Parts: sequence; structure tokens; C-alpha cells
Amino acid sequence: MNKNVMDYDTVSLDDDEGALLIIDQTKLPNDVEILRLTKLEDIHRAIYTLQVRGAPAIGVAAAIGLYIVVKNLDADCWDDFYTGLKAAKDYLASARPTAVNLFWALDRMEQAAVSNKSLSLCDVKKALRDEAMSIRDEDIAVCRAIGEHGLTLLKNGDGILTHCNAGQLAAVRYGTALAPVHLGRERGMNFRVFTDETRPLLQGARLSAFELVADGVDTTLICDNMASQVLKNGWVNIIFTGCDRVAANGDTANKIGTSGLAILAKHYGVPFYVCAPFSTIDAAAASGADIVIEQRPPNEVTELWYKRRMAPNGVKVYNPAFDVTDNALITGFVTEKGILHPPFPPK
Amino acid sequence: MNKNVMDYDTVSLDDDEGALLIIDQTKLPNDVEILRLTKLEDIHRAIYTLQVRGAPAIGVAAAIGLYIVVKNLDADCWDDFYTGLKAAKDYLASARPTAVNLFWALDRMEQAAVSNKSLSLCDVKKALRDEAMSIRDEDIAVCRAIGEHGLTLLKNGDGILTHCNAGQLAAVRYGTALAPVHLGRERGMNFRVFTDETRPLLQGARLSAFELVADGVDTTLICDNMASQVLKNGWVNIIFTGCDRVAANGDTANKIGTSGLAILAKHYGVPFYVCAPFSTIDAAAASGADIVIEQRPPNEVTELWYKRRMAPNGVKVYNPAFDVTDNALITGFVTEKGILHPPFPPK
Repeated sequence: MNKNVMDYDTVSLDDDEGALLIIDQTKLPNDVEILRLTKLEDIHRAIYTLQVRGAPAIGVAAAIGLYIVVKNLDADCWDDFYTGLKAAKDYLASARPTAVNLFWALDRMEQAAVSNKSLSLCDVKKALRDEAMSIRDEDIAVCRAIGEHGLTLLKNGDGILTHCNAGQLAAVRYGTALAPVHLGRERGMNFRVFTDETRPLLQGARLSAFELVADGVDTTLICDNMASQVLKNGWVNIIFTGCDRVAANGDTANKIGTSGLAILAKHYGVPFYVCAPFSTIDAAAASGADIVIEQRPPNEVTELWYKRRMAPNGVKVYNPAFDVTDNALITGFVTEKGILHPPFPPK
Repeated sequence: MNKNVMDYDTVSLDDDEGALLIIDQTKLPNDVEILRLTKLEDIHRAIYTLQVRGAPAIGVAAAIGLYIVVKNLDADCWDDFYTGLKAAKDYLASARPTAVNLFWALDRMEQAAVSNKSLSLCDVKKALRDEAMSIRDEDIAVCRAIGEHGLTLLKNGDGILTHCNAGQLAAVRYGTALAPVHLGRERGMNFRVFTDETRPLLQGARLSAFELVADGVDTTLICDNMASQVLKNGWVNIIFTGCDRVAANGDTANKIGTSGLAILAKHYGVPFYVCAPFSTIDAAAASGADIVIEQRPPNEVTELWYKRRMAPNGVKVYNPAFDVTDNALITGFVTEKGILHPPFPPK
């Protein structure tokens, strides 16, 4: 129960037992429980119910999960095996209809099987294991590289403000916005991190605060509306957030509240950096106007993240999950390729 | 139970039964319960436990409450009566040590007794009743005048954004920031009001949304971090907030989050008005630097407004109740004397 979340990858493979291991994020911050999943239905449920969340973490969980499931497929020939793999893949893909990394990782797994179909089923399964491990390893490497580049912007003891959770719990290790902090910790540095609680779902309070405290970081939780006062106090040297999608001109969609934070940063003269894998830049979106904002259900606001009504019946709710931050408000983009500014280099 | 909160003053006197009536704000938004208080201990508890809150409402509740208590004092001579009155006054004053209106209203009541000490105790009690009613009537008149001046800034159908609760529930009737909205409703107008939920104590979600919906206002609840997107969408013509204290130069202390909202308003070119009685301007404070910000307990943030932990142990919390908004960010001050700008006229 009292495990240190930093001792575990958010998502991993237990080869001996043939299980997908995930930190159950619905139990945080109260308990660190490692789920040991072997059945297709349980893996689907873990993604669907947000026991694992964060686009990179979902992709890796789906890849390892698909490997676990097909490893135990009772098939004697390729056609039967492929039919079983496709059925499992389609079922996992249905768990989060909008998470691009989920489809991307599952497609990579299918391709790894198809391109090795001439081998024995035993070797196809080995190839699938290798592909899942590659997806995991690449995620760790990208996040670590983001951390390296982000660290060049920091000195020991700096004050950092972050929003939502773009940390280890959204990836396998390190995370994106919190990668510089965790990597700095590995090197004996420390920082003073302020984390917005991030209404309505409180990822900042429940997840970022949790992994930062677990990593021994000096962590202060604030309500979203306190950021202005914290910046005014001069406590913050730099702001790091993650992002969900970056348009070609640098307009950036991220958790609701990010654009307001960027405006405050500009007002108070604090640098504002977006940390993300280079793959998050979407050349097909010319500007933020091309990014559709997901609207979430009202009861996330009226009932908090568990069930008890706290707003009157009859009130309407506007509950966008994300907002778009104008490129002019963003100091730079910390990616695994370095700190970039639009126009971005081609992929 | 299903009373319409707009049918009742937040605080009132029931002359027939000799009782102080208040809307129990700890039961909102789920139930409208009118408390009927006659005993000193119950009146003290109502103020202490925030069954009645908002500086003007507390002042009126204390004045009426003191009258109710001393009306039943078993005293035959002035000295005994005054001793009883002083004891009751001091006890009520201890309920909220920082609420200036509480002391001010109780002092007025004591003065009304002392200046009539030559009369019969029966007439002294009548004078106390008259004084309590004057305090109540003045509050209503000031709020209504703020509403009149605020209405000159509005046209029917306007979008209005507000923060925290500076409405009827913080006063006797109308409120300050919401007075233009309620007065407009009396005249058949309607507006589209967006109310920040106002973490950590959710006065916007629990109180402002409640009284606005009860008054038939088109009301949309948002999390504090959604205000940037609402302003960007062009849905807001004007922002009205209340305030706790205005310095001589116009720097304004109000509920945490107000300064951030003012910065967003400037960024998006939306007028930002502070609505308050003229008495809120404190000539003794030259600027915001002279205003001390109350720090509140961490569990307001980590446990929401009822008890369930939602942040990890070990995390620090910064929980200021108020912030100070620079005068340059405030378009004007809507008071009962009109719309003012610093330097303010003398009192």
C-alpha cells in the first residue's frame, strides 16, 4: 500500500507472469496500488475507467496489453492468430475513442505482426513483445530528452509552476512538463514546484502533487485562481505545461486553464514553456482555429470528481476540457529535438 | 424546503415572534431553510459557522440579533440592562474576529442605547429596534443604488462574468456585484451571467449560481480556470465583482482569483468593474501593499468544502483568501454615490 510511486513505471510488463502492470490512478492520492492485468476485459476496463490515463501511458499500456492477450491466444495457424489479434485490437481501441496514441500504438503492434507473418507464431509473439518494449523504450527516451532540454532552462532551487498532470503518471517515466524536475532530482537538484489543482478533475492535486511529493520535491498545491498571486509574489521563475496538440503556427491546445495561465505569465514577465514530444505538433492544423475543443459533462463541475452535488439544479455548465493558447504567449516548445519555435522543422 | 430564496431577505426581523430570521447558507444549494433564532448562543453560532456570511449580512444579523436578545433581558434599571447588553455585544463580536461590519453594527447599536439611556427601558428597546431596522434599510438602499448605477453600464441580454458571491446572499437584498442583475430582473430585463465556481469554498457554485437561478437569470457555472476561454469566446460584455477593501489609490482586495480575472479582462479588452459600498474605500490604506491578506487553512483546498482528502499527505498548500488587484486593471468602482475612479472624494 505505502509504495513509493517513483519506484514503479506507470506502465510495465511482468514477463514472468505474463501480466501488464499499471499504477491504478483512480486510487491516487490515497493508495499506490499496482494492478496486475492478464485478461483482455480487464485491460480494456483499465483504459476506459482511467486507471491508466495520459496519452503516452495509454499507448504503451495498449501495446503491452495486446501482447499479453495474443501471447495466450489458442491458435495453430496465422489466420486464426490474426483474427484473434484483430478482435483484441479493435476491442482495446474502443476503450478511449479520442486518444490518438491508443490507435497509433495498436497499429504499430498489428504491423509488427503482419510484417512477421512468415515466421512461426512463436516468433511472431516474440516480435510483438519486442515492438511493445520499443514503444515503451521510445516513450522513456523521448521524455528523458525533453527533461534534458528543459533542465537547460533551470537552475537549482528555481520556482516552477505547472498545470494538470504532464508527469510520470501520464507517461511511463519522467513525463513531459515534469521531466526536467524528475531528471533534476536524479542529479541531486531540487526545485520549488507549485501545482495548480486543475479543476474540474483535479489532476494537479491528485496526480502531479502526488508524484512530486513522492520524488522528494518541495511541492505546493494551489487552486487555479491563486496562480496570479503566486506569480505576483515573485515565487515562480518559469512555467512548464504539457499539451495535447500544437498547430503549425504554435497555437497550443492543452488542459483548460492553460491559456489563462499564459496570459498571467506574460503580464508578470514569467517565461512560459510547453513541453511535448515532437509528434504532438500537428502540421495539418494551421492554427488553433483548426483544433476542436472537447466539451465534457456538466456533472464533472457540479459534483466534483466523486458524487455529491454542489451547484443548484437548473444552472447551466460550460465545461471545455481544453483551451487553445495563442502562440504569441508561448516562450518556446521543449521537445526531444530541443527547444523549438514556430515555424517548426519538418518531421 | 423548496422555497424561492428570492422571496426572502437574507436577514430579517420577525417582530411578532421576536426572532432573527436568516437563510441558512450552509444548506444551500440543496435546501432553502429559514432559521428562526431567538437565543444569544444560536445567533453567535449562526455567524460563527457561516450560516450567515458576507460582511453586510453579518452586520445586519448582529444588529437585529442584539436587539432580539436585549429585548428579553430581565433588567429593571439602566445599569443592569447596559451590563447585559455589553455582555451580549461582546459575545456576538467574538463570532468573526475580522469582520469589520460586525463591530461597526454592534457599536451603532450600543450607541443607540447609550444616547437614549434617559428614556424608559421600554423606549430604549424601541430605539434599539429602530437602529437595527435603520442598519438593515441603509444596506438595502446602498445595494439598490449600486444596482442603479451598475445598470447604466448594461443593456438587456448582456453577458456578465462574476466571481465569488457578492449578491443578495452577502447582504440583505440585491447584493453589490449582482445588484445590477437583480434590479434589472425587477424591470423585466435579463442577462447571461457566467459565475466562476470560486475555489476553494465554492461560493460561486453554491451561492451565486443559486440566487441567480432562483431569480430566473440565464446562469452558467464555470470553473475558475475556464474564464479565459469564456472571454475569448466573446460571451462577456462586462465583469462585475465585489470587494473587501479598496485602498486610496484604487488597489482592491477581493476574493482570491480576482486579480487574475482582471488581467484576463485587460488582455481580452473586457471592462472590469468593482461594485461596493463607498464605506469599503479605506483612506488609511495608501495602496494594496498596506492590505494584509488572510491565509486560510490547507484543508479547505485538500478536502474541498466537506471532508474527503483529495491531495497527498506531505504536500504544502498556499491558500490566501484574497488577492489585490492593481488599480490600473480596474475600469471603475460602482458605488451608491455613482461610478468612481481614484482619487476618491472624501467621506
